[in-house]
Amino acid sequence: MKKILVIHGPNLDLLGKRETDIYGRETLAGINEEIGESAKRNNFTCEFMQSNHEGDIVDKIGKTDASGILINPAAYTHTSVAIRDALSAKGIPTVEVHISNIYAREGFRHKSLIAPVALGQISGFGKRSYLLGIDALMNFLGE
Amino acid sequence: MKKILVIHGPNLDLLGKRETDIYGRETLAGINEEIGESAKRNNFTCEFMQSNHEGDIVDKIGKTDASGILINPAAYTHTSVAIRDALSAKGIPTVEVHISNIYAREGFRHKSLIAPVALGQISGFGKRSYLLGIDALMNFLGE
Amino acid sequence: MKKILVIHGPNLDLLGKRETDIYGRETLAGINEEIGESAKRNNFTCEFMQSNHEGDIVDKIGKTDASGILINPAAYTHTSVAIRDALSAKGIPTVEVHISNIYAREGFRHKSLIAPVALGQISGFGKRSYLLGIDALMNFLGE
Amino acid sequence: MKKILVIHGPNLDLLGKRETDIYGRETLAGINEEIGESAKRNNFTCEFMQSNHEGDIVDKIGKTDASGILINPAAYTHTSVAIRDALSAKGIPTVEVHISNIYAREGFRHKSLIAPVALGQISGFGKRSYLLGIDALMNFLGE
Amino acid sequence: MKKILVIHGPNLDLLGKRETDIYGRETLAGINEEIGESAKRNNFTCEFMQSNHEGDIVDKIGKTDASGILINPAAYTHTSVAIRDALSAKGIPTVEVHISNIYAREGFRHKSLIAPVALGQISGFGKRSYLLGIDALMNFLGE
Amino acid sequence: MKKILVIHGPNLDLLGKRETDIYGRETLAGINEEIGESAKRNNFTCEFMQSNHEGDIVDKIGKTDASGILINPAAYTHTSVAIRDALSAKGIPTVEVHISNIYAREGFRHKSLIAPVALGQISGFGKRSYLLGIDALMNFLGE
Amino acid sequence: MKKILVIHGPNLDLLGKRETDIYGRETLAGINEEIGESAKRNNFTCEFMQSNHEGDIVDKIGKTDASGILINPAAYTHTSVAIRDALSAKGIPTVEVHISNIYAREGFRHKSLIAPVALGQISGFGKRSYLLGIDALMNFLGE
Amino acid sequence: MKKILVIHGPNLDLLGKRETDIYGRETLAGINEEIGESAKRNNFTCEFMQSNHEGDIVDKIGKTDASGILINPAAYTHTSVAIRDALSAKGIPTVEVHISNIYAREGFRHKSLIAPVALGQISGFGKRSYLLGIDALMNFLGE
Amino acid sequence: MKKILVIHGPNLDLLGKRETDIYGRETLAGINEEIGESAKRNNFTCEFMQSNHEGDIVDKIGKTDASGILINPAAYTHTSVAIRDALSAKGIPTVEVHISNIYAREGFRHKSLIAPVALGQISGFGKRSYLLGIDALMNFLGE
Amino acid sequence: MKKILVIHGPNLDLLGKRETDIYGRETLAGINEEIGESAKRNNFTCEFMQSNHEGDIVDKIGKTDASGILINPAAYTHTSVAIRDALSAKGIPTVEVHISNIYAREGFRHKSLIAPVALGQISGFGKRSYLLGIDALMNFLGE
Amino acid sequence: MKKILVIHGPNLDLLGKRETDIYGRETLAGINEEIGESAKRNNFTCEFMQSNHEGDIVDKIGKTDASGILINPAAYTHTSVAIRDALSAKGIPTVEVHISNIYAREGFRHKSLIAPVALGQISGFGKRSYLLGIDALMNFLGE
Amino acid sequence: MKKILVIHGPNLDLLGKRETDIYGRETLAGINEEIGESAKRNNFTCEFMQSNHEGDIVDKIGKTDASGILINPAAYTHTSVAIRDALSAKGIPTVEVHISNIYAREGFRHKSLIAPVALGQISGFGKRSYLLGIDALMNFLGE
Repeated sequence: MKKILVIHGPNLDLLGKRETDIYGRETLAGINEEIGESAKRNNFTCEFMQSNHEGDIVDKIGKTDASGILINPAAYTHTSVAIRDALSAKGIPTVEVHISNIYAREGFRHKSLIAPVALGQISGFGKRSYLLGIDALMNFLGE
Repeated sequence: MKKILVIHGPNLDLLGKRETDIYGRETLAGINEEIGESAKRNNFTCEFMQSNHEGDIVDKIGKTDASGILINPAAYTHTSVAIRDALSAKGIPTVEVHISNIYAREGFRHKSLIAPVALGQISGFGKRSYLLGIDALMNFLGE
Repeated sequence: MKKILVIHGPNLDLLGKRETDIYGRETLAGINEEIGESAKRNNFTCEFMQSNHEGDIVDKIGKTDASGILINPAAYTHTSVAIRDALSAKGIPTVEVHISNIYAREGFRHKSLIAPVALGQISGFGKRSYLLGIDALMNFLGE
Repeated sequence: MKKILVIHGPNLDLLGKRETDIYGRETLAGINEEIGESAKRNNFTCEFMQSNHEGDIVDKIGKTDASGILINPAAYTHTSVAIRDALSAKGIPTVEVHISNIYAREGFRHKSLIAPVALGQISGFGKRSYLLGIDALMNFLGE
Repeated sequence: MKKILVIHGPNLDLLGKRETDIYGRETLAGINEEIGESAKRNNFTCEFMQSNHEGDIVDKIGKTDASGILINPAAYTHTSVAIRDALSAKGIPTVEVHISNIYAREGFRHKSLIAPVALGQISGFGKRSYLLGIDALMNFLGE
Repeated sequence: MKKILVIHGPNLDLLGKRETDIYGRETLAGINEEIGESAKRNNFTCEFMQSNHEGDIVDKIGKTDASGILINPAAYTHTSVAIRDALSAKGIPTVEVHISNIYAREGFRHKSLIAPVALGQISGFGKRSYLLGIDALMNFLGE
Repeated sequence: MKKILVIHGPNLDLLGKRETDIYGRETLAGINEEIGESAKRNNFTCEFMQSNHEGDIVDKIGKTDASGILINPAAYTHTSVAIRDALSAKGIPTVEVHISNIYAREGFRHKSLIAPVALGQISGFGKRSYLLGIDALMNFLGE
Repeated sequence: MKKILVIHGPNLDLLGKRETDIYGRETLAGINEEIGESAKRNNFTCEFMQSNHEGDIVDKIGKTDASGILINPAAYTHTSVAIRDALSAKGIPTVEVHISNIYAREGFRHKSLIAPVALGQISGFGKRSYLLGIDALMNFLGE
Repeated sequence: MKKILVIHGPNLDLLGKRETDIYGRETLAGINEEIGESAKRNNFTCEFMQSNHEGDIVDKIGKTDASGILINPAAYTHTSVAIRDALSAKGIPTVEVHISNIYAREGFRHKSLIAPVALGQISGFGKRSYLLGIDALMNFLGE
Repeated sequence: MKKILVIHGPNLDLLGKRETDIYGRETLAGINEEIGESAKRNNFTCEFMQSNHEGDIVDKIGKTDASGILINPAAYTHTSVAIRDALSAKGIPTVEVHISNIYAREGFRHKSLIAPVALGQISGFGKRSYLLGIDALMNFLGE
Repeated sequence: MKKILVIHGPNLDLLGKRETDIYGRETLAGINEEIGESAKRNNFTCEFMQSNHEGDIVDKIGKTDASGILINPAAYTHTSVAIRDALSAKGIPTVEVHISNIYAREGFRHKSLIAPVALGQISGFGKRSYLLGIDALMNFLGE
Repeated sequence: MKKILVIHGPNLDLLGKRETDIYGRETLAGINEEIGESAKRNNFTCEFMQSNHEGDIVDKIGKTDASGILINPAAYTHTSVAIRDALSAKGIPTVEVHISNIYAREGFRHKSLIAPVALGQISGFGKRSYLLGIDALMNFLGE
């Protein structure tokens, strides 16, 4: 079975606990469970990580043997050349997702350093962004 | 049954006929068929339009009684305040999709005038962007 | 009697039906009636058009034999070089009006491509912007 | 009777005496007379001031008990945060007017610091800008 | 015989009737006649269109079976991603022409969205720009 | 006893009377009293001024014999090179304070022309900004 | 007793050891002692951390149960969206301090990503910036 | 005898008393004396003013009957549209001078709002800038 | 017979020898021969120069007695104010040509300092750009 | 013997394993060996570190007792003020190296935050950049 | 006797022959004569050069033994880092002059690369700019 | 034996004679001698040129039969598209060197037009930059 690495960037451990008006009441554990089930139904396994450390995310990408990456880079979307370079160096098909619609927020959030090296980007559908993202990724990997 | 208006912007009538290396070999008719089937499975109906005319798209949005809009604004993504205003005036939940990854192309394609008034945006998954988009939209409307 | 061409740009057909908190409850028909009465009182006739099509507006300007133009270019204020060029080519005295105060909205609405070729601009007074505009125009034409 | 404060910014004391090709031959006194008559016809009184001093204009706004303000901020349109803050602090309905079409002049005149805190702006109709402006203001105050 | 599609953008129907000091006294019909004769001499046929509608031009490019396109995009030079995408999708050799020298006019006219997808650009020679353009195009197609 | 010159810029005379939701209910007189008491406790005297006139503030700085300056330049923070030059010419230790958090407001308020010539800046703590500022200044002068 | 979390960003462990001409001779331990004493006098407790790791700071903010945060983000002031998002997610009242006057240094230091989500900012008073900051924070928390 | 109005902008009353390393030890009185003598030798009279008030300078320009103006706008060089407009409205030949070389200082001092409406500008020669300036002005007026 | 000065800018001596995939296999001598023949057929003579020296080109323009100038400024297109000023000072009708399509290359090549002072510009047709250019120039001179 | 600290930034652990067409087939271990030998020949010792963590690199610089630093900051070149500040605080002579020519890549890689605080920068020579860099550094330290 | 090197930049050999409405009817020879006489009266000698070659001007500056330089860099004002560096390397007091008012012309002429390394700049007084410039220079050298 | 062309740009003839605090006391002759010796040791010959003329450098590159180029473009680094094009046209491996650290100087020196067409760039090591550069170049040519 092919493996998908699911990466949650900084502050996503607070999901469902803080700013629930913006991000909803789902916890990260709950979301991961749904992602995992979706993967399982399609004969993929998932490995999950959440980290507030840019370096941890770079480490993980550098070492992973996954066939695809589903990443919500959160704040690092806009500031991390290192994660971009890691994704680019590994060349593993990657889907970028965002819970909120980053294009309806502050100007600095409209620019993603990650998008140009990803297959594509999904933004604005809450928890559903993850489920659409893994769908897109499995579809691509299954081709 | 709730209706979804599916709008294809300029030049999308050429899909599957031109630049197949970039946009794939699927024709618009083929894609519409798949979108329609997905909608049907979820008890939605679809109305399709393709136009190269900004004004036609604005007219359509202004007159529609659809419950949701799935739009690939193509070139008008980057230049049409009129379509943005139409979507904003009607206030119908809208999902923006792109076949190619607009963030991996020329700089002027990185800016969407539509995104800030949409629920969310999906970019880069070829034909699949439409299917993910209608999934997201039906999910939202069904809530 | 001199004729004034009154042009309403994209989405203004929705006036009084949508976003009434921003644009008020007056319909376009109602506004046109008031404009027409004001013109009549001053011995002018009016011809009205509303279009969501940039090309229609350019066509109309190119063919009109009016002595003056009162235009609310709406979304095309910020994107249409074609309408600007049409006004400039015809050289008919033109007054630009806006229902909302465009300078109190998003940054991209602060720039008018039309204003530099108009006599002047009136922005922010709701329906009244039109009545002030035709007053200014008739006053100019009557000089 | 409600009072309207009419403020003329820097160099407007020279009206009718200098650059008559641009600003016309009307003097400020003549314009004030016409404004006053228009106000009177609608049961408003006017208080007039002209000052070249940003601070005087701020002082006046801070102390006024007027129901509305009609202001041609002239050069301070583009440079005075202090006048903007004064208008904003008092919250009195304000109409901004300009004799010339500021959008057909040098680039630095295209940006008004005042417009975002005004009801609206009227630009380009010579003396008539004032008369349209007081009309708009009285109309608003009479609502 | 190979066919050349000659496209005249917005407001060019006014040629020879308006702003003759800038654009000269030649009418569009007269110019088309000369283009046609030049084509005939080289065994090409021409199809002519003039439209003020961006969508019409996109439609025409999408459907044409011409071997080459000679286009004066006029105002759409600076604002139409849709026409650019149409030209790019069809991949038909295209020459862009301008009657006036766009680099000696307002700053916003210095940027062409069309030029990067054209063979080349000719600007500033009045009616002659068209004749030079068709010469360049026939020369290219005849290679 | 060393003297501290306390300068309040434009519109601060309206403190406690206008926009109390933003600036609080304290009047300038009340704030000055607290500043004065704090100074007295530390064996400093204070001289207070409030002016809406950039020139008055420049005059005062130019003539003062104070040992330190506590200034809330308000609107002039963003527009006055003259006040900056006055502070720089005199070389008297200066602390800049702001009642509101200028970095959480409009973009044009994020740039202070005064800060580069001040000891430091305190922004966002309401009336408390003044008390922290005089504390910082007395601490510096007492060193 | 309410707790205040005191966060020192990157390189602040070198305080008093390096660049003493700019940052002074006080060590971080010495500064923390003074902060702690000030807190104690007002019945607050302090928890101190210094880290060169953006992720550590985000972790700490995410997990803290403090009532207020006093932070000198140092270099991360200008580059960390992650710390901004952490502060924003937790919504704990935060005061941003800087030892040097960041507005008198290189241009890239004039922009703080943290300030818009903080109560306020204090910059330029050396060690004293911390003491003023905790004063402001305790004052706010005690209200 | 023709009269020359000599205007010294903000902070120039401090000349010779402050920042003597930059501006030299000459006082304004001393400089005026030398300017006056130079004028006298050429049969011109001088009227001198120094003001820190933008409005005073605008007032003076508006009312003067001088044949020429020699102005060191100091800080207002970079911020005053009002003084520019006054000079432009009066149309009196004007020479702009600066004691220091404004192009060797901070970036914001490189832009003069006054220069485009002056005959010319002299910058960087200390007291001598004034003497060169009056020489240039008298030469122009004497032509 | 009227004379045309043909100027080839820097590195054009390498034509046909280097980067033949971009610039083609024609040598400068070959191109000059074709230009000369075209001129001869229309009763013009040509004088040719190629130089890598900006100063040589300025010298030549300053001294020439030609009736028209055909120039490919190559690299100096984007950097030479001196050549622009020479053309402007002499006022001889000038046509600017480029072998490659400069608008399809690096961003810094999109800006021509020469175009605003030329009759027009022809870009992108290889050797043919010269022949179209001399055609345009002779046509203009012959009018 | 003097010690040189050799720092490899993010993703450099993948050297020789990924993107070998860009970065070559040398592994980091191999490169370190060559650097070490070069150092040894000149009586220097080396300490090597590679980290994907900005904070680790800042920690290391803060604690090192090396006489010189050779750093390839990789992605952190463009985003890390923290590493810049660490180098600046320690004041140890530093040489910045890059394997690829950063000036021939994406625009955001053309700006180094590190270069202004380094002795110098070497970019584009593959593995050789390190060997040239240590040569430069030893040469400097040996002076 | 001290020597002054007088440098005239590109196209100034055309003075008095071309564009006399802008630059006047004085020839360069005539201007040099007047400069020479002014120098002689003050016991200075002059050496004159005019060149259209940036390199010649750099050569001359590099080799001169003059005590001062009077330069009108003309077009090179805005483009020559090489002349700036030559002046900076030699460190000879330099005065920059311009015949026309460069601040009243195209935007690209508002920026001088030379001014920051000159004593000062004189712009806009026609021939007189040179005479004022040598006066300023001799005055400086005589101090 | 392979030949390396060593090009020194403008003002480098002054090395060791001027601004020795910045550029050191080595003369160009001395540096060339060391470069030559280093080349000789590796069986390369060198040809040296220094010129202040952009055109001379372009001429030389165009005509050279060298196998590699070592260039310090000095001021032309930032302004010469012509030298860039010459290097690009010839396609000879080129190393760009700078004596000073251009990234620690004025902003306009941070941008090299040459770097994108060079193998790599070495900046900031004084004379040593040349020796490192020839080392890098010989290493490349010897591969």
